[in-house]
Amino acid sequence: MNAAPETWLAARERCHAQALAAVGQPVASLETPALVIDLDAMERNLQRMASFARAHGLRLRPHAKTHKSAELARQQMALGAVGVCVQKTDEALALAHAGVTDVYISNEVLAESKLARLAQAVRELPCRFALAVDSLLGIERLAAALAQARVEQAGAIDVFVEIDVGHGRCGASSPEEALLLAHQIQAHPTLRLAGLQAYHGGAQHLRTAHERDTALAASADAVRETMAQWQAAGLQVPLITGAGTGTLVREAGSGLWGELQAGSYLFMDADYAANEGDPGAPVFEHALFVKAQVISRGAHHAVCDAGHKSHAIDSGLPTVASPPGLQFANGGDEHGLLRAAAPEQLPALGDTVWLVPGHCDPTVNLHDFYVGVRGGLAQGVIERIIPIDARGAIR
Amino acid sequence: MNAAPETWLAARERCHAQALAAVGQPVASLETPALVIDLDAMERNLQRMASFARAHGLRLRPHAKTHKSAELARQQMALGAVGVCVQKTDEALALAHAGVTDVYISNEVLAESKLARLAQAVRELPCRFALAVDSLLGIERLAAALAQARVEQAGAIDVFVEIDVGHGRCGASSPEEALLLAHQIQAHPTLRLAGLQAYHGGAQHLRTAHERDTALAASADAVRETMAQWQAAGLQVPLITGAGTGTLVREAGSGLWGELQAGSYLFMDADYAANEGDPGAPVFEHALFVKAQVISRGAHHAVCDAGHKSHAIDSGLPTVASPPGLQFANGGDEHGLLRAAAPEQLPALGDTVWLVPGHCDPTVNLHDFYVGVRGGLAQGVIERIIPIDARGAIR
Repeated sequence: MNAAPETWLAARERCHAQALAAVGQPVASLETPALVIDLDAMERNLQRMASFARAHGLRLRPHAKTHKSAELARQQMALGAVGVCVQKTDEALALAHAGVTDVYISNEVLAESKLARLAQAVRELPCRFALAVDSLLGIERLAAALAQARVEQAGAIDVFVEIDVGHGRCGASSPEEALLLAHQIQAHPTLRLAGLQAYHGGAQHLRTAHERDTALAASADAVRETMAQWQAAGLQVPLITGAGTGTLVREAGSGLWGELQAGSYLFMDADYAANEGDPGAPVFEHALFVKAQVISRGAHHAVCDAGHKSHAIDSGLPTVASPPGLQFANGGDEHGLLRAAAPEQLPALGDTVWLVPGHCDPTVNLHDFYVGVRGGLAQGVIERIIPIDARGAIR
Repeated sequence: MNAAPETWLAARERCHAQALAAVGQPVASLETPALVIDLDAMERNLQRMASFARAHGLRLRPHAKTHKSAELARQQMALGAVGVCVQKTDEALALAHAGVTDVYISNEVLAESKLARLAQAVRELPCRFALAVDSLLGIERLAAALAQARVEQAGAIDVFVEIDVGHGRCGASSPEEALLLAHQIQAHPTLRLAGLQAYHGGAQHLRTAHERDTALAASADAVRETMAQWQAAGLQVPLITGAGTGTLVREAGSGLWGELQAGSYLFMDADYAANEGDPGAPVFEHALFVKAQVISRGAHHAVCDAGHKSHAIDSGLPTVASPPGLQFANGGDEHGLLRAAAPEQLPALGDTVWLVPGHCDPTVNLHDFYVGVRGGLAQGVIERIIPIDARGAIR
């Protein structure tokens, strides 16, 4: 063969074509490692979350940083979600270019070139955008980028003031600072003051319900103090947006939050499953799996072909969904070590192993597409290949 | 705008075009997070490694699981490397399709569909392939795949018997088992018995030189025992291949290994830098960085825009190369928390921060391309955009 060398994009396309060719085939034929959605389980999660938001009279704006997929965003919006959140400018643009019509970047953007790209998208794409801010510089640069792109429509973009509600990461650190930011947003006609971004990321993974209660009580206090300060200045807070899969019963029951941003409920990872449950919370199922294969066997261990390049381990190693009785140990970038109480329980060379990722979001970010399986992992059929449009969209 | 929704591949292409537009611009203009190669430092690392292998009269076959790039593989081969290693079938195919002419999959492949793809590549691509095996099943399936693809040339593919030299992962666990595998390879004319795969992954990251000495002494014993067994059966071992950046002086000085597989030397990560140095080992520099930007400031911390989706943390968090005096703390998927001894040392909103990844290989696997910078990180110019051809090629 003397064809010209293939480009990296052509390599991606070739692998995608390989995956598409498997549609309609039994899941048993699927090459490993593969990122698999149990579509039946995911759709039950989607319904449960939509019902929960509806029952509480709350807006649902799922976090697409979890799934990074326009197809899944549309599926969420078809069930009533008002739009989605993302964390990065290029994530927002990937989804908007792929047809999602309402995207909120729930994070700070300071780079002028990114804001220029966002402003151009505000002008040109059929999508409503929103952005979080926690600094005067962020507001000034956003307004300048819109002006530069000749966006002149009043309230062309929604702007949320992020306040720190306990995570200690981004967000205004006092009600006074938040008020100052609100006034500054109002000084720019192209910006619409949309409300408060109030999300406590760290609280999602506190193991006991009591710990989460304590953290969210403090978050609610921070929200109330900011609201009081704004009201004293004659300013209503239009909307408070936040909440994650680990805490959402609290935000939903607070009478404060009007919009829920949970994302992980779609897939549920091993880390969330380790949390003590909350009374009244919807019960979500594992719907995301890594299919792996045993490629080596020792007397007392098996080795499968999935390591850190197939699943993220920042929140712990994967658990083994099947076969039963296996422990997963760290085998490096490309391998997983499997151990069992007795060697006869170990899987054989070539056997399939199903893993539940420790943390869904960064695991999804390792893959170009999901393989959607209908009818269960054991006997199911590959129904569709779902592109992860915003994979690697970190800018 | 009413154009049809963009596909995920078009989104990748759009981001790539964005990156290409920056070539020739100062590094200061580069959007964050970005995966940056200091080309001057990398080229010094390349030269040092090539000299080391030459001085020891050893073949160098760098591990491309580190860089996953055809362009960098060719740069290594231009300096004398005989080819590269990879860990996965699709990694091998991505590099071979992109023009690399000698690729060794230093790992076990059991899936018949992957072996069929490899056999087709053996027949069609202008590339010499090799594969590691540690089971009779692996050998039988490889031979069957070649037959199925009508590959009939004698020794069409090189096959290495992997032996476990202390890591406890893949590899034959006894000299007898390794000999059995060697005989089975010889029973198939299309397979060429190429030698032993003897790599101790775990030893690379032992902190003290003494610990690594002890581990590699045991590895060398395992190699000698296998050689003795083969020789007693009238079989010479053609080549022993292995070694990594952390141990290579030992394999090079052993008189056993004939080929070095080090990969990380190209970039050097924070984890390798934490190893106690070895007398006689080439000194490699950090050449891979994540450029990040401060997007939020608190009274006692700054937040940058690089988290687990920009750098892998399986071997520890990144260190901060610049500005000096900063500690990086875990800020989640999209954020890094920066702390300093005194608040006035913290960077300001919008400032640039340069990170050294904890572990290069899985960090590279998060990105679609490198930004190659010439003339240093502070004042340099963006010289070239290097595609990471095999990113995500995990099958």
